[in-house]
Parts: sequence; structure tokens; C-alpha cells
Amino acid sequence: MADAESLAQRLIAADFSRRGGVLQVGGLDLATLAETYGTPFFVYDAALMRRAYRALSEAVAGFAEVDYSVKANPRPDIIRIFADEGAGAEIASGAEYAAALAAGVAPERILFAGPGKSDADIERVVSGGIGEIHLENVEEMARVTAAAARHGRRISVAIRVNPGPDAQGGAMRMGGKPSPFGFDEEELDAVVDRIEAESHLCLVGLHLFAGTQGLSASTLLAQWAYGLRLAARVAARIDRPLDTVDLGGGLGIPYFAGDTALDLDAIRAGIPSLKTMIAVEPGLATARIVLEPGRYLTGPAGLYVARVRAVKHSRGQHFAITDGGMHHHLAASGNLGQIVKRDYPVAAVLDEGDAVHRPWSVVGPLCTPLDILARAALLPDLAAGDLIAVLQSGAYALTASPTGFLSHPLPAEILVDEGRATLIER
Amino acid sequence: MADAESLAQRLIAADFSRRGGVLQVGGLDLATLAETYGTPFFVYDAALMRRAYRALSEAVAGFAEVDYSVKANPRPDIIRIFADEGAGAEIASGAEYAAALAAGVAPERILFAGPGKSDADIERVVSGGIGEIHLENVEEMARVTAAAARHGRRISVAIRVNPGPDAQGGAMRMGGKPSPFGFDEEELDAVVDRIEAESHLCLVGLHLFAGTQGLSASTLLAQWAYGLRLAARVAARIDRPLDTVDLGGGLGIPYFAGDTALDLDAIRAGIPSLKTMIAVEPGLATARIVLEPGRYLTGPAGLYVARVRAVKHSRGQHFAITDGGMHHHLAASGNLGQIVKRDYPVAAVLDEGDAVHRPWSVVGPLCTPLDILARAALLPDLAAGDLIAVLQSGAYALTASPTGFLSHPLPAEILVDEGRATLIER
Repeated sequence: MADAESLAQRLIAADFSRRGGVLQVGGLDLATLAETYGTPFFVYDAALMRRAYRALSEAVAGFAEVDYSVKANPRPDIIRIFADEGAGAEIASGAEYAAALAAGVAPERILFAGPGKSDADIERVVSGGIGEIHLENVEEMARVTAAAARHGRRISVAIRVNPGPDAQGGAMRMGGKPSPFGFDEEELDAVVDRIEAESHLCLVGLHLFAGTQGLSASTLLAQWAYGLRLAARVAARIDRPLDTVDLGGGLGIPYFAGDTALDLDAIRAGIPSLKTMIAVEPGLATARIVLEPGRYLTGPAGLYVARVRAVKHSRGQHFAITDGGMHHHLAASGNLGQIVKRDYPVAAVLDEGDAVHRPWSVVGPLCTPLDILARAALLPDLAAGDLIAVLQSGAYALTASPTGFLSHPLPAEILVDEGRATLIER
Repeated sequence: MADAESLAQRLIAADFSRRGGVLQVGGLDLATLAETYGTPFFVYDAALMRRAYRALSEAVAGFAEVDYSVKANPRPDIIRIFADEGAGAEIASGAEYAAALAAGVAPERILFAGPGKSDADIERVVSGGIGEIHLENVEEMARVTAAAARHGRRISVAIRVNPGPDAQGGAMRMGGKPSPFGFDEEELDAVVDRIEAESHLCLVGLHLFAGTQGLSASTLLAQWAYGLRLAARVAARIDRPLDTVDLGGGLGIPYFAGDTALDLDAIRAGIPSLKTMIAVEPGLATARIVLEPGRYLTGPAGLYVARVRAVKHSRGQHFAITDGGMHHHLAASGNLGQIVKRDYPVAAVLDEGDAVHRPWSVVGPLCTPLDILARAALLPDLAAGDLIAVLQSGAYALTASPTGFLSHPLPAEILVDEGRATLIER
């Protein structure tokens, strides 16, 4: 519990601040935002997103460009922050495509991935223009071919590869095992040949995504090297250079006690050898290498703020019952891919630092024992009316939550930039 | 896996049928519904809901009335089915209150529960009329008092009790331990006295909910007896009879291999002794005893139907990638309260019975390994275009799912009644 607390404290010290004990985001007072917009709400700090984008871009400079994976947080106002930095977008649905366009991303800077693309979505991107479609299975190859033929066009495609076990790493493995994602590495040559035989498809790239929530620089670097080798193999087989190698996202952020942030210095230190790999590979020398993180760019910039409606001391345990819960933040409740619920970092919005902290269960208003934001967050004593904030809530939060569950209102989403707060566009 | 298959087969044999191998719901052909409404979709059979309501009402006749817990499926068209049978409604938010009214439930037949009721929702039900508000904590008592005072009214309230460990049972325990729900049993007398001292509150009932997804008749009967004893204690302390005793819902349905359906005959056999308890208790003799299940009434009547977009045989495993997934059906993906994912019953819509069945992983279109509808459903060979159906999907399904995740369209919801299909009202 001491570690969980120190993660919240470390994050606040690094990215936020307190004024008179009150937590500030981008220089704005969360208590004031709560008065203005009502609770619960999400607040995102644009400057933190820019800082993350620039830090990562700088660390991989000369090797890769950084695009934004829209699914982490698909609000156009968020996508625009990265688009303004020069990022392209990785999308996984037609609505994400529309959001990227609305945010000002040029169609040719959009990559379309996802294992079960619909005919409607394929039609939408083919007619509207798209950088590349990442093919994940044989049926999809046929569908994209048909759409391209209908439009009398040749569509740029990449092969998404489900890599062999050597590419492993990451907390949630996406390769090496049986997988619905992409083509298995062992059938890569056959797939290349098959695409090459389709006159409406133009094979220009490879997409490898070997993991998610990766906090180890060495694992990420090894995955990227693995992806480059696979891409070189494809280039050799088609006997022309690739345009693009998408090495995926998968860059993690610390959520739980004991998690350590990804070490960008270690990433930076590994880049020269990757650049060397490219330099000696004629099939890759002119390729654009793409990283497309989502969580890494938006997660730390977002907070979910809720107000305590009641406190209860039940059989030795302290409960704060808030107006926020799993209907807005499923991941924090432990119901999105966690096996055993661990607590996201949670802080009291007002914490003057000198009060005793003890473990509080922070729960939501839904009539289910699943609606828990934290089982044992170390917090000062709370009372009805107090505000709490869940940190690391900028990615896979509201849009990954069952907002209709018990039919409560949607929360506001607020973007803070240059000292101003604006309600975010949906 | 054989058991999982036999659960799907047993459910289909009991509640549905096949014509030419094609699964029928309420006499309508799922393949035809898929053509008409597109996939994925939910379909609910009104007759099955009525049958479940009548069977339960009959089993507890002379002891309890059966109300409907709106959170299980809050669509007004669904609530109306039970309202037409004479059911009241248990609600947990202002929007659920509106849905119940829209479905024709009289305000005085509505019970309002939930651990973190908002001021806005309290105001809404106080001004619109409500049967009872279930008080869960001290702050809520003050809020309801304030709202009643504003309106110059006296509001009927019940005490929600977090019972002691003797009341236990159910797969997901809601009592006996520290809990944010209700007042701990050990402080019941003090709470009764406190409410009695509030001139704007009229204490008329007790609400006990000791578990959820209960499949054991003896556990449920024991919980109900426990609730009656607590209610008698409250009546004795206030020295007048109670109007209502809400014994909660918590009646389960079989989801997984090995689950056995609740035995209504065993419930029926236990009712006479509960009636005897009431008869000898002057404080309960005139009380309305209420059960308010949700899942039990709507769960078995609903199916989620999706179309296969691609099949993939990866490293020895068979995958069907469908257009439906966790964004519509979080519970089936194992991400709603399950520790280890177990498969909901899944069937092929076309199954002529003579084909070889083997284990298929049925996954959704989202770009995440969490998007799994079944890990190993025993199904005939599938191809792109085939339809699959997830059974037991009428409760805690669409409205408990992250519909915005990856920004895919909402599914249709179809109600089948007397051989006709209608799109359901949202």
C-alpha cells in the first residue's frame, strides 16, 4: 500500500502540482473545475500529451516516426494534439477514421488495422483515401481487393504478422501463440506471394505488434529488431524496398505499485544498432519506420475526478462512495483484462500532506460489488463532498467503459491547454 | 467442453428450436432476422420472459410478489412485459426511473435502491412520486430528508441492511463482510431510531440483498428467512407493522458448464414454512413481501447474434473472427466480474447436428486479445458469413458493455413477441 501511495505521489510530483493542498492539472484547480463542470469528469492535460510525444519522438529520432493509436482515446480534440505535432494515426474502425480526419490527419497518414474490418469500413477508407490497410486474414484480402476493384484503384496494403515466440515480451502477449491477429509468421512467404498476385493490391509494408503495456526497453527494442528482420524478409521476397514498417505501439505506463516507467534513455541507447540494421538492408533503407503508441501518449495526461457522496465505516473498513465508478472507468475497477484487481493510483484532490493517510475503499454508485475504483488507496480522511482523482486515466478509460450500466449520465471530458479548460468534442 | 456444449444444447432444447437446422427464437428464424436487421444484434423472446415471470410468481404465490430489477435490462419495451404481468420495478438511477414510468409502471410500485444516489435523482423521484426509497447510509438519509422537506412531504423509506455472515450464500457475496451497501446489521436498531426521529421520513420497510447469481434454492430460502427475521426485528422496534419487505433478487441462471438451473420446485417446497413465519409475526402479517430479480427474468430470453467475418487456423487453434464482441457483450468476454474467463453457451445458428463439432475460439473485431466471446465453444466448422449465437444474453449484456470501445456501431435490439419482431426502443 505504501508503494501504491508513492506511485500516486510520484506521478503528482512529476506531472502535476498542488496549490494550498489542492491538486492542479495544467495549472488549473481541480476543485474549481468540479464546481464548473460538475462531477464526475475526466480532465486531460494537453501539455503532458505533447511532452510525451516529443520525448518519445526525440528518443527514436532518426529511426522511427511516432503516430497515434486512436483507440486509446478517440476524441478528435485529443487526436488533434498529436496531428499538430506531425503524427499520423492508426485506426481500427470507420468511426475512428472519421475522428482522425476531423482532427486534421491527412488520409495518407492513416493506417487501418484490426482483425475484423467490416465491408462498410473498408469501403469508407477506400473511397475516402487511406495510407495503408493492414491485412489480417485471407477473407480480408479478398474484401479489400473487391473494394479496390469497385473503385478501379490500387490500394496500398501491409501484412500484419503474428510473430513467432522469439518476438515475445510485454505484459499482454499478442504473438508467438495461436492468435486471431494477423498472419502467422510461418505462412508469411505464401501470403506475400498471394498479395503480389492481386493486381488491385500493392504490398508496401509490414505490421508487427508483439505486445501491449510494455515497460521494458530491452523487450521493446528486441521486438522492433525482430520486426525489422521480418520486414527485410518481405522486401527480399518482393525484390523491392518497403515503404513502411509499422512496429506497433505497446509502450506501457506504470499503473500499479511496483511498476516502473519505461526508460526512454534505454530506448535511446538502443536506437543506433537499429539504425545500423536498416542502413545495411536495401529493402528497408528508404522505409518509413512507424511506432504507433496510444496509452503511452495519453494515459498519464488524464485524470478521472469524482465526488464523495457518502462515507461508511463497515466492519473495520473505510468506504468512500463516490459519484464516479466502473461505468466511466472500467479499467480502474479491475474489470478490463486484469486477473486480480490491483489499484490504479488514486489521490485526494485536497491533501495538505500532514494528515494521517489510511486505506480507503473507493467505490462507485452502481448497485454491484464490482463497482470499485480502489480497494485500499492510502488517503487522508474523507467526507461527503470531498473529491478524489484516479490518475493514469487518459487512455482506455471512458470509451472502454460500460457507460450505459445503470443508466447514469455521461461525465464531462475537459481538455486543459495553456491555462484554459474546454469541454471536449465527442 | 462437452458440458459447455451440452448446456447450449440443453438451453436450445428447452427454450428455442431449430428448423432445417436454423435456430429459431419465438418462432422466427435467426438467419432471416440477421438479413433484415444486420449483424450483430440482440434478440429477446417476450414469451420466455413472461414464462419465467409466471413460473417464479407461481412458485412463491401466497408469500411474495415478483418485481423487476430494471438494471438487468433497462429498455422500456422489456420493463413493459413485466409491468403488464403486474410487476413493480426496482430502480437504481433517475434514468431507470424514467424508463420504468415510460413502461407504464406506477410510481408507487417503484423501489429506489443503490449506494450512491445523486441529489438530482432523489429530487426526481421525490417530485415524481416513488413507492419507497431504500436508505443505504447516513448521508443519504439527510439528503432524502432535505428533499422531502423541500416538497413538504413525508417519504416512505426502507432500510437496506448489509447482513451478518449468517445470511450468506450466492456466488458473489454482498453481505456478512465489510460493504458499501446498506447499513451493517449490527447498527440496525440505531438506524431505525434515527429514521423514526425524522419527521419527513416514514419507515415502512426493510431491504435485504445477500447475494447474486444464486443457483441454490436452499441458500435463497435461508436468505429470505433471514430477511424476515430482520424485518420482524424492525417492526418490533417501531412497534407497528411493516408495509414492505424487499428480499432482493439474486436468483441465478446457468452460464457455464456444470451450472445447474435454480430448482423452482425446491423453492416452492420451502414457501409454506416462510408463510408460517409471517403468520406468527404481527409486524409482518400485512406486509407485502417482494422479490426483485432481473437476470432470472430476462437472461435466458436473450441471444446475441454475430456474423463470422473470417476464420483462421493459427498454430493448431481455430478462430472465428466475428462482427460481434466485447464492446456489445462484456460479460461473455469474461471481463465483468469473472476471475478466470469461462465460456458462455455459444451455438452456431445453422447446425444440422450431424457435422463434427470441434473447439472454436470465437473472437470479436476489436484490436485487443481481450475481445473473446468463447475460448473453446464446440461448434460445427465455420466459414465467413456464418452466424453464431451467444445464449443467456438477455441480462447485463449490452447496457453493461463498453459500446464506445473502438467506435463501432451499436447493435440492433429486437423483441420477438407472438411471431413478430420489432426494433426495441432505447
